[in-house]
Amino acid sequence: MVHDLHGFFYPRTVALIGATDKPDKPGTAILENLAHFKGAVYPVNPKHGTLLGHHCYPSLMAIPDEIDLAIIALPAALVERALEEVHKKDIRRAILISSGFAEAGEEGRLMQKRIAGKAKEYAIRVIGPNALGVYNTDNGLDSFFVSRERVSRPAPGRLSIISQSGAITVILMEALARDGMGIAKAVNYGNRLDVDDADALDYLIDDPQTGAVAMYIESVADGGKFLQAAKAFAAKKPLVIWKAGKHELGAAAVSSHTATLAGKYGLYQAAFRQAGAVEAFGFDHMIDASKAVALMDYPCVGKRLLVVTNGGGMAVAASDQAQLEGFTMPRVPDAVRQKLDQAFPPFFVKNNPIDLTGSGRNEDYYIALKEALPHYDAAVVIVLMGSTTVTEEATAIIARACHEAKKPVTCCILQGLGYTQEAMHALLKLGIPVYPSPERAVRALAALRKANQKKECE
Amino acid sequence: MVHDLHGFFYPRTVALIGATDKPDKPGTAILENLAHFKGAVYPVNPKHGTLLGHHCYPSLMAIPDEIDLAIIALPAALVERALEEVHKKDIRRAILISSGFAEAGEEGRLMQKRIAGKAKEYAIRVIGPNALGVYNTDNGLDSFFVSRERVSRPAPGRLSIISQSGAITVILMEALARDGMGIAKAVNYGNRLDVDDADALDYLIDDPQTGAVAMYIESVADGGKFLQAAKAFAAKKPLVIWKAGKHELGAAAVSSHTATLAGKYGLYQAAFRQAGAVEAFGFDHMIDASKAVALMDYPCVGKRLLVVTNGGGMAVAASDQAQLEGFTMPRVPDAVRQKLDQAFPPFFVKNNPIDLTGSGRNEDYYIALKEALPHYDAAVVIVLMGSTTVTEEATAIIARACHEAKKPVTCCILQGLGYTQEAMHALLKLGIPVYPSPERAVRALAALRKANQKKECE
Repeated sequence: MVHDLHGFFYPRTVALIGATDKPDKPGTAILENLAHFKGAVYPVNPKHGTLLGHHCYPSLMAIPDEIDLAIIALPAALVERALEEVHKKDIRRAILISSGFAEAGEEGRLMQKRIAGKAKEYAIRVIGPNALGVYNTDNGLDSFFVSRERVSRPAPGRLSIISQSGAITVILMEALARDGMGIAKAVNYGNRLDVDDADALDYLIDDPQTGAVAMYIESVADGGKFLQAAKAFAAKKPLVIWKAGKHELGAAAVSSHTATLAGKYGLYQAAFRQAGAVEAFGFDHMIDASKAVALMDYPCVGKRLLVVTNGGGMAVAASDQAQLEGFTMPRVPDAVRQKLDQAFPPFFVKNNPIDLTGSGRNEDYYIALKEALPHYDAAVVIVLMGSTTVTEEATAIIARACHEAKKPVTCCILQGLGYTQEAMHALLKLGIPVYPSPERAVRALAALRKANQKKECE
Repeated sequence: MVHDLHGFFYPRTVALIGATDKPDKPGTAILENLAHFKGAVYPVNPKHGTLLGHHCYPSLMAIPDEIDLAIIALPAALVERALEEVHKKDIRRAILISSGFAEAGEEGRLMQKRIAGKAKEYAIRVIGPNALGVYNTDNGLDSFFVSRERVSRPAPGRLSIISQSGAITVILMEALARDGMGIAKAVNYGNRLDVDDADALDYLIDDPQTGAVAMYIESVADGGKFLQAAKAFAAKKPLVIWKAGKHELGAAAVSSHTATLAGKYGLYQAAFRQAGAVEAFGFDHMIDASKAVALMDYPCVGKRLLVVTNGGGMAVAASDQAQLEGFTMPRVPDAVRQKLDQAFPPFFVKNNPIDLTGSGRNEDYYIALKEALPHYDAAVVIVLMGSTTVTEEATAIIARACHEAKKPVTCCILQGLGYTQEAMHALLKLGIPVYPSPERAVRALAALRKANQKKECE
């Protein structure tokens, strides 16, 4: 059976009501972005004959094709009328981009309520209002009213994003694109007049492109429904949730920007635990945990951590964090130590952390991981690319050792500069997530461990 | 009176013992880096006639000039002999780059002890061994054995770095360079045979180029001496300290890589508090706090925080963090609110956070800050550069408003992509530190507040 939300992500035909070419208008950016969509696009605007090379239709009814999805990018006051047209054209899916509804005060709230009633009456499923809508790398569908010049779109990948906030959706996508991480689908449902957090999760459970979900919420529409959906999702795929509006000041910010209540943080935390979701404690943590769970697929991850480094101080920082995250760091077994003693000069440190020092070469990483990693559950590999004995090839060599050992590994390489940026992207392509600090590399492994801690592996 | 350590940072003449042109040798990278030094450089190596365009001397004694500083980049076993030559030439400052001493086992420990005895006897002050030594942007002095191609050097700035770990020194410099932050001086003292943490702090108290210090330690040489130096320093300039080897696993990593004891973390924390230093809890925090205290100079910072944003979700995250950091977020005063009501469309949120929404323009940031910031102690300004109504000029406009209000402000702009990277560097140049997440922008302000919380402003 096709999921009720499938039509939002895989329409054959899309009509854009409010298409335009005026700079800074949502309808302009969306039409530009729809150029990437592998389906038919029908702009609607009575004031234009053509737009961006498309024939432009004066009304929905004038389109000589069935429409699967309507995207409405009109001022709030015109949306109700547009929804009636959507109904007349027998379209069953609408994304309401427009803001100025419940988040904007009493009048908007009433307008939103009326529209909700009509959508129900007409059996139209709605995403929005006050939403970016949908981005799907599988078919290029992109209803976001932010230009690609301003906000990079990640390439196809296994992570999907569900977000209540448009700003967070955009900034997550930007951060993931920066790190070379791909995504499968993103949905920002805004005021959730109809489609909500739980619906989106429920749809992605069976989406073959989605391997994991990163979810941002300030509040959920229906606690029981959400818990059920989160539980079902997390039983099949890793789920990372960032709940904002946790504390008094954050909750006040939520109610002043969305006119909803943030709810008791303790209840959310209990629900996340019960569902088996990984809680992200802020923006960086969200990015870090999401990368780990989307890139690495291990049924369960134990707590014995190996650290390999070419800079002692960085390994100390990783070890401090390992303790906080509940890892243990048993010493390298004697038999392994003997092998390392043979392979390495005396000044390499062959405990755990294994410190290859500033003299460590690419192949020393391979030797250390090959000999030691089979005796551990996971590893953090720290590479200071400033060392002259380490080259670009280190990334492929490290990845090979990790894949041979079939153990989850995160890397710490400082990002941001050309040289290290390339190393980071190279490792990501090989399925190894890279983090810009030792603490974050450890924390990401801890998130993976939590996500994959199913009962059967305890 | 000239400080005893001045000669390490401001020699007129430098001799490099162990200069070479073999790839991957420390002596090669150091000689290359000394090309930037505004003083005379004398390479010493009996096997070469010239090196990198310098005349190369067979011995120290052959140099026809007085030498202020000797940099020794020889294998450990040759260092003792070299120190005798240093003494014969009547040089009073030596940086020992060489590793293979106390950190490498019993034999090395004894060798280090012998050298320490001789240095004392000859009245030679020593930085190292197992150290990068000194980087001084004021005169280009650079004894680091990492090439500039591999590790970027930050431009001149107000922050100085004192670090026990070479790896951390390098990675801090790389991160600061990436962010467009300048530094004044950096010193990595390694095994601290002589010059230690407290000495370095004591020297930088009166260094006119140094406005603040970021310090990484695993342990200190002498607790009482350290506390006294930290107290004296923090009374004059902000001091951010990252103590690693805090927890059991981290402390074990310290003793296996430096053969020193990490000491009780609780005692360190008490000392930091007593000294008035800001504790950094890891790598990112170190970078974040250092940027804030080095760029912004305010005698004392109160706790009333204003948040201005063009994306609601980001402001919620900032507000959550504000609560954790002990800030308050009073609502915008009524008189200000009336002005904002006149200036802004109804859908902008005029509480605190002030949310300019995706429609906020550059000048709206100016209006919000100009009207509201005088009523607060500090602000976090969040700019989603993906919005089409915000342009590159936003940075200058925001900086102007902050400078007019004379209040400390941190910005949150996601970094890493070309467009946003430029915005970040532009703001940094205007003295406003930029962070890649809302939580980090708030945390950095909290560090500034802590650093500037002198008794008189309570």
